[in-house]
Amino acid sequence: MKPLILITNDDGVTSRGLQHLVAIAQEYGEVVVMAPDHNASGVSTSITCTRPLRVNTVSQGEGVSIYSCDGTPADCVKMGLEHFCPRQPDLVLSGINYGSNASINIIYSGTIGAVLEACLNGCQAIGFSLLNHNPAADFDACTHTIRHILEHVLANPLPDFTALNVNIPRLPAEQIKGIRVCRQARAAWKDGLEKRTDPIGRPYWWMTGKFVCENPPIDSDEHLLAEGYVTVVPIRPDLTALHHLETIKSIEI
Amino acid sequence: MKPLILITNDDGVTSRGLQHLVAIAQEYGEVVVMAPDHNASGVSTSITCTRPLRVNTVSQGEGVSIYSCDGTPADCVKMGLEHFCPRQPDLVLSGINYGSNASINIIYSGTIGAVLEACLNGCQAIGFSLLNHNPAADFDACTHTIRHILEHVLANPLPDFTALNVNIPRLPAEQIKGIRVCRQARAAWKDGLEKRTDPIGRPYWWMTGKFVCENPPIDSDEHLLAEGYVTVVPIRPDLTALHHLETIKSIEI
Repeated sequence: MKPLILITNDDGVTSRGLQHLVAIAQEYGEVVVMAPDHNASGVSTSITCTRPLRVNTVSQGEGVSIYSCDGTPADCVKMGLEHFCPRQPDLVLSGINYGSNASINIIYSGTIGAVLEACLNGCQAIGFSLLNHNPAADFDACTHTIRHILEHVLANPLPDFTALNVNIPRLPAEQIKGIRVCRQARAAWKDGLEKRTDPIGRPYWWMTGKFVCENPPIDSDEHLLAEGYVTVVPIRPDLTALHHLETIKSIEI
Repeated sequence: MKPLILITNDDGVTSRGLQHLVAIAQEYGEVVVMAPDHNASGVSTSITCTRPLRVNTVSQGEGVSIYSCDGTPADCVKMGLEHFCPRQPDLVLSGINYGSNASINIIYSGTIGAVLEACLNGCQAIGFSLLNHNPAADFDACTHTIRHILEHVLANPLPDFTALNVNIPRLPAEQIKGIRVCRQARAAWKDGLEKRTDPIGRPYWWMTGKFVCENPPIDSDEHLLAEGYVTVVPIRPDLTALHHLETIKSIEI
């Protein structure tokens, strides 16, 4: 049986990044797309509990069915797995995202929220992001990388309860130096909310900010992306700081 | 100078759980509240990028200023830190949440989203949750636990880039056996989306599901909560599966 691949994203079902990923995935298996019907960037692993969800059939063709949903990327994964996939998928993919999901940005990312949701459901899951926000971004430069990673993961299953976060530098394919496994860098967003005043004198704030990542370690995604490598960070949906279980033990009573 | 304590939650500024936490925090310092003006449960570490944010002054009294914001808990932390706290707070607290944030539930939790946001900003941050969804929940049983934890953290700063996730069992104070540091349990939500049909025959789905956590390890939050302990899980906003960096190294090219 051909592999079954569920695909979602956070930029919405009409995204060129999603379409590019679908085209590549079709080379490897049967594809089901369940993606948000809107831009859901920045929604993290949100789920929709306060209203019901709707699903729209976008198209059904040979080897690929495309649906949109009015929920979050994590909602889309739940919906796809539970109601629209004929069986547990062999892979769940999310992306290709417009813009970086390196470093701490993954904590906000709807792309990665979908990956974590799939991982919690026992699926092999991979998020793909291209470091380019331009609507005309060249996704062709991602093709070789994505083919390699899909082939590798289909042949070598990921460790239990572990997913992959893949970031691709904004470079022509021939200038990408290779693929490196690494850790996420630590960073911060500074000056995150810009204050403005509306026409009748009341304040409001826009989310903005400056990404600050000084001297990222050489084994981190930010460093390796700047050096021209594709980065692959193994991620886990368990936030326990295992190395500090002993450190804080004195809080016990 | 008295400690400065920023408080938020995901149940909204009018929540009794928030009010209880504010009352305790006032014993230890000056309090600024910046909480959602609505119920923001399940929004994870979402941030609001597609519209501006507004802030409403709820009350300003001796040692406590209360504001609401139309954003997410993570937005509230950014807003509080950047525009409404007179200086970097000594503590950022989130809660008291109605219902468990143990195990994998923290991945969806707005309460914990706020804690992670504060941690990313270099603050000491603690999330508090009571295992009780009842609107009439008895938060008095949490008082002793919260006092102990606040006093401990004010006297013993948390490790760098580490926050605390505290869950309190639904028990009278005298039946709580103690406080235990532990790891989060692995679990799953099964049958997450219930399909219904609207009056004109179209399908829609409600988020629901059954929490499944079979035989949680004895050093996990789910086990210890069931045994009657308060659980304290040190958490970190870095998702790297450090123990699998070598495992997946063969993906490199």
